Amino acid sequence: MFSMRQSTLFTKTRKEAPKDEVAKNAELLIRAGFIHKDFAGVYSFLPLGLRVLNKVVSIIRTEMLGLGASEVSLAAIQDKSIWEETNRWSDEQMDIWFKTKLKNGTEVGLAPTHEEPLTRLMRDHIRSYRDLPRAVFQFQTKFRNETRAKSGIMRGREFLMKDLYSFAVDEKKHQEFYEKVAEAYRRIFNTVGIGQHTYFTRASGGVFSKFSHEFQTVCNSGEDVIYTSENSNFAVNEEILDAIEAFEGANEAKENFKPRKSIEVGNIFSLGTRFSEALGLTFLDDKGKPQPVVMGSYGIGPARVMGTIVELLSDERGIVWPDSVAPFRIHLIEIAGGGEAESVAKKLYEKLSSLGHEVLYDDRDVRPGEKFADSDLIGIPFRVVVSDKTIAAGGIEVKKRTEEKTNIIPEKDLISLLSE
Amino acid sequence: MFSMRQSTLFTKTRKEAPKDEVAKNAELLIRAGFIHKDFAGVYSFLPLGLRVLNKVVSIIRTEMLGLGASEVSLAAIQDKSIWEETNRWSDEQMDIWFKTKLKNGTEVGLAPTHEEPLTRLMRDHIRSYRDLPRAVFQFQTKFRNETRAKSGIMRGREFLMKDLYSFAVDEKKHQEFYEKVAEAYRRIFNTVGIGQHTYFTRASGGVFSKFSHEFQTVCNSGEDVIYTSENSNFAVNEEILDAIEAFEGANEAKENFKPRKSIEVGNIFSLGTRFSEALGLTFLDDKGKPQPVVMGSYGIGPARVMGTIVELLSDERGIVWPDSVAPFRIHLIEIAGGGEAESVAKKLYEKLSSLGHEVLYDDRDVRPGEKFADSDLIGIPFRVVVSDKTIAAGGIEVKKRTEEKTNIIPEKDLISLLSE
Repeated sequence: MFSMRQSTLFTKTRKEAPKDEVAKNAELLIRAGFIHKDFAGVYSFLPLGLRVLNKVVSIIRTEMLGLGASEVSLAAIQDKSIWEETNRWSDEQMDIWFKTKLKNGTEVGLAPTHEEPLTRLMRDHIRSYRDLPRAVFQFQTKFRNETRAKSGIMRGREFLMKDLYSFAVDEKKHQEFYEKVAEAYRRIFNTVGIGQHTYFTRASGGVFSKFSHEFQTVCNSGEDVIYTSENSNFAVNEEILDAIEAFEGANEAKENFKPRKSIEVGNIFSLGTRFSEALGLTFLDDKGKPQPVVMGSYGIGPARVMGTIVELLSDERGIVWPDSVAPFRIHLIEIAGGGEAESVAKKLYEKLSSLGHEVLYDDRDVRPGEKFADSDLIGIPFRVVVSDKTIAAGGIEVKKRTEEKTNIIPEKDLISLLSE
Repeated sequence: MFSMRQSTLFTKTRKEAPKDEVAKNAELLIRAGFIHKDFAGVYSFLPLGLRVLNKVVSIIRTEMLGLGASEVSLAAIQDKSIWEETNRWSDEQMDIWFKTKLKNGTEVGLAPTHEEPLTRLMRDHIRSYRDLPRAVFQFQTKFRNETRAKSGIMRGREFLMKDLYSFAVDEKKHQEFYEKVAEAYRRIFNTVGIGQHTYFTRASGGVFSKFSHEFQTVCNSGEDVIYTSENSNFAVNEEILDAIEAFEGANEAKENFKPRKSIEVGNIFSLGTRFSEALGLTFLDDKGKPQPVVMGSYGIGPARVMGTIVELLSDERGIVWPDSVAPFRIHLIEIAGGGEAESVAKKLYEKLSSLGHEVLYDDRDVRPGEKFADSDLIGIPFRVVVSDKTIAAGGIEVKKRTEEKTNIIPEKDLISLLSE
């Protein structure tokens, strides 16, 4: 990552989002020039948006590598044979496929998830219990033919997904890893700034197992509903509310749990041997007997996380990025007025950049009011203003995006403040 | 990038590639565990392969940023309207489309290139001559419905592409940038180790302009043919051989130019105003008059570059990676024999890693012959062997992948050698 002069940023902010856009996250991100809407559910990432997305990716990658997982990148185009073996090819079984054809007429699909191809691939690499455990992850574009795509970048028809898959000798070893992933996910949501709104919920296991777990961020624009209580962190998804009293940890009556709208920001699944049995992924145990591998899968959508941050933390003036994922940390605004301001700002830009800060330097020849409005809309954590007035008043004005208070301080104090 | 113990690498090498694989690059990369073949023209990247691909990407990215270009990531799914406006939607006009449908029946395509959506997008961001020049690039997956997909990762049905697009006020400004891109491309091919085999060729401009330029790497497995002469670096593609004497710089008779098989590793196109006029991308000139933007497009496929390196530089024992793109720089092989070798190797691994070297540490419990064969197949530039024998002989054995000679030297000499 690096600093940048705003005059070289090709995107312009705009007053209005496209008329057909109904999601707050997309409205703000389009207006601020982070993304472009191609059509419903299909968005492109522009320089500011790609920087944020890459920071979310980087935070997730660090945690995945910390789990000992190896990074790969699997193909999007899918041959149907393996999906037929697991009963997930027909639209009756999985209704979000995009399908297309090779020139020779062979039907192929675009991967909505990757359990099948990865399980097949691992047959080449897992032979004995000595080859286990393994964990493999990727950041890869998924395609899902959503009927409803009205949640901006939180539910795209194509979207970047971090998917992690685990391979273990038995259920006990699987559970140990599963719990480590849950801890890594908590750290990820804390780091990106949505941890305090995010619940670890019990959810239906769908076709895979009795229960799974999700990470749900409470937010008014959420498409999901979870039930939480004031007395604990225990939470469940709507579909299993009736079973709540059966859970260990839910030491309360069902009536104490109240519905709240929420966004699913992560999910973790125990897959058992559903895929390994269907696709023949076995290992020889210590007695030389073939056994099916016990698997798990674990997803986070970086763009959905980015959209959730915008939904949760923006205000009436624009986006408010946490430090960890902001496109830049410092928005340096030069108000040139014929005096020293221009040269002071330029030197400050070079100094801050050389100290390793990521600075967006608004060196554009536009009105101060436009610069301030753009700065609020873009949502960089620190706004630093250099004008002839601030220089006359003893220095440089600094303001946090999350606060109203401005301070004029000498350059050296500014540098200490930003290095805190 | 980071060091790694080979016992934690999930991939295994194999003696044979899949029977239907005919490309040398894919055969070697599959056998060495860099990629997995899903089916013809569709490959997944495994940890070693992804490391190489990421290094190629990183080299290209550095040059793109050096040109002042901004990175974006555009969507793959395409609505047909803009492609109809430029006459590139129908299969008669562009015969490599993958097309599919949204749930509501709307036909969409998977982008084989991105001139149309980027031109549309830039309409929001280019208004006056003050907004020009601009250059925008991405690393993004392209989909092309190739009839013939027999060249391994050099011609995939889906593949990562670096595509750069430029936007200028006029042809003169366009040409200046075009030439800078050509220089950047030369540096890229030099850095990745194929520069001396790569020619800057004159090619047909296709539907865009009279001529374009390509970078063609001379290689027996190439699908293209270029004509080169012994007397100069001047080269042309086959389709324009008849026009060769008309070119400035071709100071020779057509007969001097001989055909050679080659791989197209990069191309640069002057697009003129073909896309900006069709899609209404105009700017106001300094007299306030609307003018169409003059565009260029510039492609490099990082996986094709990677495949070309394998085709060109491998030998009968396996792959030979140049330092700049090798998955690791050092392959440290421990031959444990009951003596000190194990602890010496472990300490050396930690020391080299802490010095910033990327080390693959073969700590596996397998026969030395298997370790050496795997090392040759994987192709890491330096092989470093620690055994009780090398310790008795005064140190550590070092061998370059490109040389036959081995040397046993003390640890401190090894560290100086590797830091050269």
